[in-house]
Amino acid sequence: MDNSTLDYLFHPRSIAIAGVSPDQTKFNVGLRYMQSLFNSGFKGEVYPVGPGGGEISGSRIYRSIRDIPDSVDYTISAIPARYTPHLVADCATKGVKAIHFFTAGFGEIEDERGGQLESAMLEIARQSGIRIIGPNCMGLYCPRTGLSFGLDLPRRSGPVGLFAQSGVNSVICIREATARGVYFSKVVSYGNAGDLNESDFLKYFAGDLETKVITAYIEGVREGSRFATALREAAKAKPVVVLKAGATEAGTRAAVSHTSAIAGSNEIWRNLLRQAGAIQVNSIEEMVDVNLTLLSMPLPKGRNVAIIGQGGGPSVLAADDCLNAGLAVPMLPVEVRQRLKDIYASETGSSFRNPVDLNPFLGSKTLVDAIRTVADCGQVDLLIIHVPFDIWLFINSEYPTGVFIEAILHLNNVVSKPVGVVLYSQTTDEARQLASEAQSRLREAGFAVYPSIGRAASAINKVIEYHEWRQKATKGIASG
Amino acid sequence: MDNSTLDYLFHPRSIAIAGVSPDQTKFNVGLRYMQSLFNSGFKGEVYPVGPGGGEISGSRIYRSIRDIPDSVDYTISAIPARYTPHLVADCATKGVKAIHFFTAGFGEIEDERGGQLESAMLEIARQSGIRIIGPNCMGLYCPRTGLSFGLDLPRRSGPVGLFAQSGVNSVICIREATARGVYFSKVVSYGNAGDLNESDFLKYFAGDLETKVITAYIEGVREGSRFATALREAAKAKPVVVLKAGATEAGTRAAVSHTSAIAGSNEIWRNLLRQAGAIQVNSIEEMVDVNLTLLSMPLPKGRNVAIIGQGGGPSVLAADDCLNAGLAVPMLPVEVRQRLKDIYASETGSSFRNPVDLNPFLGSKTLVDAIRTVADCGQVDLLIIHVPFDIWLFINSEYPTGVFIEAILHLNNVVSKPVGVVLYSQTTDEARQLASEAQSRLREAGFAVYPSIGRAASAINKVIEYHEWRQKATKGIASG
Repeated sequence: MDNSTLDYLFHPRSIAIAGVSPDQTKFNVGLRYMQSLFNSGFKGEVYPVGPGGGEISGSRIYRSIRDIPDSVDYTISAIPARYTPHLVADCATKGVKAIHFFTAGFGEIEDERGGQLESAMLEIARQSGIRIIGPNCMGLYCPRTGLSFGLDLPRRSGPVGLFAQSGVNSVICIREATARGVYFSKVVSYGNAGDLNESDFLKYFAGDLETKVITAYIEGVREGSRFATALREAAKAKPVVVLKAGATEAGTRAAVSHTSAIAGSNEIWRNLLRQAGAIQVNSIEEMVDVNLTLLSMPLPKGRNVAIIGQGGGPSVLAADDCLNAGLAVPMLPVEVRQRLKDIYASETGSSFRNPVDLNPFLGSKTLVDAIRTVADCGQVDLLIIHVPFDIWLFINSEYPTGVFIEAILHLNNVVSKPVGVVLYSQTTDEARQLASEAQSRLREAGFAVYPSIGRAASAINKVIEYHEWRQKATKGIASG
Repeated sequence: MDNSTLDYLFHPRSIAIAGVSPDQTKFNVGLRYMQSLFNSGFKGEVYPVGPGGGEISGSRIYRSIRDIPDSVDYTISAIPARYTPHLVADCATKGVKAIHFFTAGFGEIEDERGGQLESAMLEIARQSGIRIIGPNCMGLYCPRTGLSFGLDLPRRSGPVGLFAQSGVNSVICIREATARGVYFSKVVSYGNAGDLNESDFLKYFAGDLETKVITAYIEGVREGSRFATALREAAKAKPVVVLKAGATEAGTRAAVSHTSAIAGSNEIWRNLLRQAGAIQVNSIEEMVDVNLTLLSMPLPKGRNVAIIGQGGGPSVLAADDCLNAGLAVPMLPVEVRQRLKDIYASETGSSFRNPVDLNPFLGSKTLVDAIRTVADCGQVDLLIIHVPFDIWLFINSEYPTGVFIEAILHLNNVVSKPVGVVLYSQTTDEARQLASEAQSRLREAGFAVYPSIGRAASAINKVIEYHEWRQKATKGIASG
């Protein structure tokens, strides 16, 4: 099946939700899905279905999907696993194109009857031409069309396409990304991957115009060689960021319990991802760091970073962090240091070697002049500017951080090189509040903002590595 | 000189602050030190000194330290570097025992006259028997006696003794630690280490009864072989946590600019620290993680961790994180899993293998029963319990996290094995608030609380490694 057609998954005209009870006093997954679609602004029809019938939130609950007096494009199942073959048969009768099974209790459970039930259910779907998302997953989130699996996921759309085998982790990914100003085109939580799997989603996102960066949380793949090919092709088209979970023996055991995934060894995966040009990350936090860098930082011409900030000790750690992440921190030429000394009317220039330690007390304009001087240096490919938030004890003032933020916001007009901003040292409520406001302003102005220098440097280096791979890989196509 | 006498540094009866101007409209370091001592509850006398005389905050400013009509134990210098030899001479006349130089502009500057001035100043001090802290540093923080270099550093005392070559980083260390419920006996920010250096502070803290854990931020050491010996002896007495900054070429360059430290190569340091039994950490965050573990978690008998929490995907990542950090995640025996199935009246037990995925909806009592069942297993040495805070989208409720926190708080009475708690997924204000309250309660009850499973596992493994070293090192003494 042509995967470009998967686009219909994200544009259903009408949705049936199977497993809605009229009893609002109990935890009611089906009702939560109804409310999620409502809160997310879904414009189509939503039909609750439950064996007892009745009413909920002013909507009639149909006893069977076949009773719905309208066509149904998409079904969300929150019914017990044993009834799912029957539901699929009803959906086939009704002409449903795809079913998402929140329902668990299939191949992931210890009892082998779970796997048998999953096979039986999938076989009916296959025969009917119905595509399945899951089972054992959260399903689809597409802010532009109002699909959602959460009551309060952001309605703002963005350029990241995510497919994640874990429902909870897909929510955490969305939360962590949103908190950093990174938004999604589409998210698929796909659980056991009984039918549609990683390879399908890779191919879909590779061709999806709304998606600029593909991101995956994978516990194990269903079709190894198809996946490797799809990954390589996708990575040539756009960056693919992969968090491979279940990479250790215990992690694999957990993955089998969770989504019945065959996880594969850590080393096999590392090689596979590297050769295919994927950007491997080791945590959800790093996933967000890399997404942010890909989306908000122009590609630096090289790895020579100028580190600019305040504080001698933080400068030392910053230099270590950049070197350890794979970047270079060249000594600034004597003429650049002299210009900085002139700007600061300073006799000594020892803190201008790189890292560059700048005094904020002369104000934003001086700071902009100094930063531009550093950025203009031919030996500098990118800037990392670091601002600590709760250490201003002697002065007990917002002033220095404010000066830095104002200066950075002015750089868009005067500095052409990539700039990463690190807002750190946020342990007090006041510092967190100031930093949060600063992050919002900087993100709106297009800057990549990170919580530590080490994380910024590591993400930037991984993005540079990806572009190096891509240049080689696409040259290979051109010449071969 | 016997280092045990360094204790007098932290118990001055009277303090002179040199470099106080009566002009409160300008940034006034001396005045800030006065205010810091006042805010921190310093009980002794504080005498401001400034060449222009006058008054500040109701105190007379003496034109010279020699004019003070009282003995002076300790002087804080915020005067320009060129006047410091004269100040030391005055202090000698006055019988001052120690001087802290906030003053910079010595060996750390490019101009070689800075180093010459430092030598001259130190020589006068040496001849007079005055000990020097710094120059180019923040000085002393000792909450019990009210010494402080910040307007709002905590007045609560604790068991960590910190010496840190960087002033800004010493503040960041205190802030980050305090935010995690870790407090200090004494902190020394010691800058250029012209007189008192790392070896002196190591020996002092090794013998200090108030200090249970020694922690150091070091850019470079002054006396290499004395340091190695002092470190090994200190590590036998109590844990020593070391963040070695300036471990790369660029980091070294920054360290020389910052505190004129000779940084030494990364590999030399790694070997030196390992052989001496120090716990090497790579960031301030990790420094706090390890301190917290040392102070709040009893030593586990081995590395077998049971991971308990909620969510299939987080369990998979948790297992990877523990294995990658050096811990082991054994499969729980079938009889333990059966008991968990009985407790949860659950047909399937696939999520009880370890990691253990527990349903909070049956309430705290059931959760405590389940956790105790896992803890009682002979193959388990410690527990890591992880609680996510802002993913409860379907239920939109504080309930599940609350159930977990209540259950953990009950464990003190029923579980004898070490427990680490991970509170994660805190991106929304509401989640942060809930998590912050939970952390306070858990810390008050004595639990070690971490922001991620990977950080918890890594810190715990480093603490186990230290105790393994210590057992060997102290056996060596007994038998040799």
